[in-house]
Amino acid sequence: MATPEVPKTCKVILADTIAKKLLAEVKDSLAKVQSESAAKPTLAAFLANDDPAAAQYAEWSKKTCEENGFDFDLRKVNKENLEEAIVAANQDDGVDGIIVYYPIWAGNQQQDRYIQETVALSKDVEGLCHTHLFNMYHNVRFLDPPANLKKSILPCTPLAIVKALEHLQIYNPILAYGNRLFGKTITVINRSEVNGRPLAALLANDGATVYSVDISGVQLFTRGSGIRQPRHQVLDKKDWGLKDVLPLSDVVIGGVPTDGFKVATDLIRDGAVCVNFSSYRNFDGPAVKEKASIYVPSIGKVTIAVLLRNLVRLIANRQVRQ
Amino acid sequence: MATPEVPKTCKVILADTIAKKLLAEVKDSLAKVQSESAAKPTLAAFLANDDPAAAQYAEWSKKTCEENGFDFDLRKVNKENLEEAIVAANQDDGVDGIIVYYPIWAGNQQQDRYIQETVALSKDVEGLCHTHLFNMYHNVRFLDPPANLKKSILPCTPLAIVKALEHLQIYNPILAYGNRLFGKTITVINRSEVNGRPLAALLANDGATVYSVDISGVQLFTRGSGIRQPRHQVLDKKDWGLKDVLPLSDVVIGGVPTDGFKVATDLIRDGAVCVNFSSYRNFDGPAVKEKASIYVPSIGKVTIAVLLRNLVRLIANRQVRQ
Repeated sequence: MATPEVPKTCKVILADTIAKKLLAEVKDSLAKVQSESAAKPTLAAFLANDDPAAAQYAEWSKKTCEENGFDFDLRKVNKENLEEAIVAANQDDGVDGIIVYYPIWAGNQQQDRYIQETVALSKDVEGLCHTHLFNMYHNVRFLDPPANLKKSILPCTPLAIVKALEHLQIYNPILAYGNRLFGKTITVINRSEVNGRPLAALLANDGATVYSVDISGVQLFTRGSGIRQPRHQVLDKKDWGLKDVLPLSDVVIGGVPTDGFKVATDLIRDGAVCVNFSSYRNFDGPAVKEKASIYVPSIGKVTIAVLLRNLVRLIANRQVRQ
Repeated sequence: MATPEVPKTCKVILADTIAKKLLAEVKDSLAKVQSESAAKPTLAAFLANDDPAAAQYAEWSKKTCEENGFDFDLRKVNKENLEEAIVAANQDDGVDGIIVYYPIWAGNQQQDRYIQETVALSKDVEGLCHTHLFNMYHNVRFLDPPANLKKSILPCTPLAIVKALEHLQIYNPILAYGNRLFGKTITVINRSEVNGRPLAALLANDGATVYSVDISGVQLFTRGSGIRQPRHQVLDKKDWGLKDVLPLSDVVIGGVPTDGFKVATDLIRDGAVCVNFSSYRNFDGPAVKEKASIYVPSIGKVTIAVLLRNLVRLIANRQVRQ
């Protein structure tokens, strides 16, 4: 008996497609902030670990920078010299933005956190300085209220996922800016301080009902019934797990960086949107394509485009008259 | 104690906004089918009942026709002469499309059905002839396969709601044409042969999970798990009611033409999209605006725009070389 032909219903969207659109926008905004005679903007990138993934990411970043009118200055330094090297870059007018590849002190997250705070706010292209993080968690979009001319910087990977969801039209532009996820239910698997928790907060601040899942359990991020709060609130969902939240979710975002972890496809809702931001793919690709309406297998190239977008924002912020 | 200010989160979208966009498209497509010397396209409208709502609707249709380059020829006839009058219009080259205001024989739907079938297929601007209905239910988009040059006509009110959902970005243009509602759950309250049942079929044929509700109960319209069927299938949901389907629904479409009926707002999901197509408003407006992300209070003007869109399609179909 012939197997009946199964129509392909899942749309696979590659990071490249989303990144290209963002890079075109970056090009336009760069032209606006850059006078003709000015030198190319320079991103100083500090590599102080031996992680081959970091080296690979730096390589991609360099290529994207050079293709889009930016200078990428990779600085390999010892852990011990990193702090002084960052301070020097903070003071160097030839450096427009600073990126540091983490983790540096494996097993000592506090020391990595110290380094993040060492980067000058005006050069924090990754949005990891406390002021940027505080603004993000409090849904504050500018650094200089009430003038509101200098935009606060959002962390690259969470913002890359927001940009991906905008591209996928999960953000509904018919709704008011800031409420465009109202009515959407989203599961984020990963609650790290650099990725999962900021992402859950960003999505909830835009109106979504967000289930944030990690090994310690499930937290619900919302802006309250009818999104009546100015910023998100968090509620522990005791005894809840993926089996409870996946069937409710319009969008499932996987970001657990281990190859042993896979999202159970049978729990995903028919027609859901699935996005992977882990270096390991947290979805079973062939199976998820039989169930999802949209699948984004990776996000890395979007993250690099967002990095350049943030860099242009830093330059624009510096041009605001005090 | 001061009442805390409640941010307005519900976007109210008026039919006029959606209709204007469609009428601009109609203008463009009319220009394509119409040679400069040709007379204005003529819509013959048969009014054979005493329904003030029908007279009102005819008045609006006349106004919209005249504003958009169409002739609207209202023909008031006795019930007894209606059939012959339609046959004459079928044969009259000066008539491009025919609309009849129903109901005519109150309490005798069969006789109304007979009149619907009397209208020539090539002038059936309402999409109510059996060939048009059959094609709609079977998800067949053209009248002349395999050439596929003549588009099949869809019924006006259901198509108006589809166009409204496209405007509201519920249809996701990222997905393949024909699958753009995949992942969406929609409740349609009304299962009449002219409105609710065709609407449920259209939405399911585009990939949605549709709960069709009337006083006799709930039916589930889908294209199967993973939208694997070429057209929808229907399943009775025994003992289900609005209390079961409203909390699951991304979109709630109300169309019960009685003022005694209201959708219970507390059953509607936070952030749902609510659309009313009944002449009576089936939602409690002030309450639904506290809960929905988008509310469309009426659809009538969109229906008239779709009527003209269908009329231009009939003219284009006639121009296809046999």
